[in-house]
Amino acid sequence: MSACTPYELRNMDGKSFGNQPLSICDETFTPLEVHYDLEAAKSLFTRKSIEAGPANIWRYRALLPIPEGFEPDLPVGFTPLVRAKNLGKRIGANNLYVKNDAVCFPTLSFKDRVVSVALANAQAFGFTTVGCSSTGNLANSVAAQAARLGIKACILVPADLEPAKILNTLVYGAQLVRIDGNYDHVNRLCSLIADQYNWGFVNVNLRPYYAEGSKTVGYEIAEQLGWRLPDNVVVPMAGGSLIRKIRKAFKELVYLGLVEDKPVRFFGAQATGCSPISHAVKNNLDHIEPQRPNTIARSLAIGNPADGPQAAKMIRESGGWAEDVSDVEIVSGMQELAETEGIFTETAGGVTTAVTARLYAHGRIHPDDLTVSCITGNGLKTTDALAGKYEAQRAVRPRLSDFEEYLREMNYAAEAKPELVLAGGK
Amino acid sequence: MSACTPYELRNMDGKSFGNQPLSICDETFTPLEVHYDLEAAKSLFTRKSIEAGPANIWRYRALLPIPEGFEPDLPVGFTPLVRAKNLGKRIGANNLYVKNDAVCFPTLSFKDRVVSVALANAQAFGFTTVGCSSTGNLANSVAAQAARLGIKACILVPADLEPAKILNTLVYGAQLVRIDGNYDHVNRLCSLIADQYNWGFVNVNLRPYYAEGSKTVGYEIAEQLGWRLPDNVVVPMAGGSLIRKIRKAFKELVYLGLVEDKPVRFFGAQATGCSPISHAVKNNLDHIEPQRPNTIARSLAIGNPADGPQAAKMIRESGGWAEDVSDVEIVSGMQELAETEGIFTETAGGVTTAVTARLYAHGRIHPDDLTVSCITGNGLKTTDALAGKYEAQRAVRPRLSDFEEYLREMNYAAEAKPELVLAGGK
Ligand SMILES: Cc1ncc(COP(=O)(O)O)c(C=O)c1O
Ligand SMILES: Cc1ncc(COP(=O)(O)O)c(C=O)c1O
Repeated sequence: MSACTPYELRNMDGKSFGNQPLSICDETFTPLEVHYDLEAAKSLFTRKSIEAGPANIWRYRALLPIPEGFEPDLPVGFTPLVRAKNLGKRIGANNLYVKNDAVCFPTLSFKDRVVSVALANAQAFGFTTVGCSSTGNLANSVAAQAARLGIKACILVPADLEPAKILNTLVYGAQLVRIDGNYDHVNRLCSLIADQYNWGFVNVNLRPYYAEGSKTVGYEIAEQLGWRLPDNVVVPMAGGSLIRKIRKAFKELVYLGLVEDKPVRFFGAQATGCSPISHAVKNNLDHIEPQRPNTIARSLAIGNPADGPQAAKMIRESGGWAEDVSDVEIVSGMQELAETEGIFTETAGGVTTAVTARLYAHGRIHPDDLTVSCITGNGLKTTDALAGKYEAQRAVRPRLSDFEEYLREMNYAAEAKPELVLAGGK
Repeated sequence: MSACTPYELRNMDGKSFGNQPLSICDETFTPLEVHYDLEAAKSLFTRKSIEAGPANIWRYRALLPIPEGFEPDLPVGFTPLVRAKNLGKRIGANNLYVKNDAVCFPTLSFKDRVVSVALANAQAFGFTTVGCSSTGNLANSVAAQAARLGIKACILVPADLEPAKILNTLVYGAQLVRIDGNYDHVNRLCSLIADQYNWGFVNVNLRPYYAEGSKTVGYEIAEQLGWRLPDNVVVPMAGGSLIRKIRKAFKELVYLGLVEDKPVRFFGAQATGCSPISHAVKNNLDHIEPQRPNTIARSLAIGNPADGPQAAKMIRESGGWAEDVSDVEIVSGMQELAETEGIFTETAGGVTTAVTARLYAHGRIHPDDLTVSCITGNGLKTTDALAGKYEAQRAVRPRLSDFEEYLREMNYAAEAKPELVLAGGK
């Protein structure tokens, strides 16, 4: 097991806060970030050491904030990066890849990455109860991973969450609290709770550690491309953390010489019904104008995103852009990805796919660019978004003649066996 | 890319049928099996060549019936094998592992393995339409993988399939035909269709190739245990194919010297509402008495299993056993696995988990044995099985006082922050 690079929390001015469950500098009120001793990482985080590691995120543990002595429990991540030729053909992309976290272990979203890093720290800090505010996927992942580790979990969500995401939290035995409000209400309440109780809130007091888990998406993309950076990345945004951390991962890889430096443009994807970050990018604002979310993409429905300003800034600096799409387009995006690549994603993936299509259509991405579109969650969690999209067809009696009549009804062209054609000929 | 071992179809008497889309010997009316030149495999299928391969089923391609020149398209399989200490504690198992195909890529069941092998052959035989009869998971996998490969898919299922499995077939753009009958009706109809149309039916005319894909579960178990065989394997049974192929994989590994020979006991798991194979095992029958299925474990609801007699025979010969559990126990099994290991499985996994528990309870498995329990599908596909199991709780206003009142209502013990306790003291 490879050693970890020394790390600590720092504020924006570089002041150290050591390692503790704290997310905001109490002087500057700015977020704390995990800072690594990158000189030490030079010998620890190499292509060779990574490739010798397991086929999961722990192969990158030398640049994750993992407490000394931690033994990884679950093989999280290292999800497929697949070439998307069929989707590419439809949208005019000649060199498109899909990073598929719809099949992330254990709970089928990229949140499994951040949660496993957060819980490693929760245990090291001695918390016996963990919590989170969630738009759904985080709830699923905290509940499942806490169950596995034998830690109590108390999870707060907006009351209107999709039924599958509710069930997929309760089934693990977590305490689920439905809050009468949107995510931003839930999140504010969680900050108050975190002040009162001795709980490890993965995305509140453990947030700096938690967020680092998202870097693994960036590491994996680069490694799976054969230790290269793409030209463009399209990333769905809720709090705005994932997109920033993919960039942090790429920068570290460049700094440590694992990939060649080159410009990577970052494209953010949101639903129009909750698009505070894309609004800021499009209007060149340096602040976020909070919105009241109203979209089927509930996992992205954060109206006042914690990392919004920084995400908007880095998108613009990278030469990228942000786009937002309507609920109708989100559903089409889900269908399009399923029909072309056989990947069933949730509404957030519909957002990413529809935004990717639009970026090509508007010429914001060149057809020949190497582009990675990040699919972050599974379609089985948001089946309600497709309600009414597929007519229930009548049942057919189990007889060949009934089946053939049905095919004719459906105008389904069926090729007969060659021998039969010949036998019937003349 | 490693070369493949020469293979061909043979009947039970060893007569060769070459390679063609055919599943039954037209003289003896017995199923054809893929036969490999195991001498040639000695140099091709080695620990070293396997470990140098990709982290998916194609690392085992040297012993899969894969046509010359085939380029694997999707990173299927190589799912986690995790130690199940918590579940073990509950059921009295000291050395229990769970093989978790609930997160198999791309469609979250072990059927992705068989389908990818079948479609490789469908393409080589020149079929432009593929089909299957399915209890659900196969439908999902054929639809998704055919979409990705750009092949047409026509899929027949019992009309009463779970909504998520229906949607997860339609979303990929497949032609789905709901048949007014149970799986056995559907399957008979598919045989007739396969005679008429020039379609590659993955589990009819392509069945010998298809079924070989299940061997990869066995290879993975052995490799993930550090090139060792377990003492026991618990496997859910529908047609009875998976359990047989895991045994075939183990035998090949022993023959080729990749693992040490040792007795492995095979345990089959069924739902009482459809238990033709466990009935045969318990009553020492050498034939199957077909049943009319009536169980929530619809993916296992095959009343007249194609590989039933052989499965029953090999279970007994191995010194194993078969058990079946009620629908109530199936639901408890799903909940127990989720609560202890954070794995949300479908009804079939509830069957496996409940049967595993019973085998320990009845002393059929020794507490210290190394046992692998095979979880083969994802819980998000059968959420209806848990309907009514979790009461919807009231929504809570987003205020600390409301939250605290709610915790009291729920009798949820929350530990206050240490400083606060001190401050409040005296
Ligand atoms: C499926 C999915 N994709 C993307 C995101 C966005 O992540 P971030 O909040 O880091 O921007 C989320 C957040 O909940 C999510 O659930
Ligand atoms: C989830 C699941 N597990 C197990 C099985 C059993 O497989 P077999 O038919 O090979 O016995 C099936 C078959 O459909 C299945 O869907």
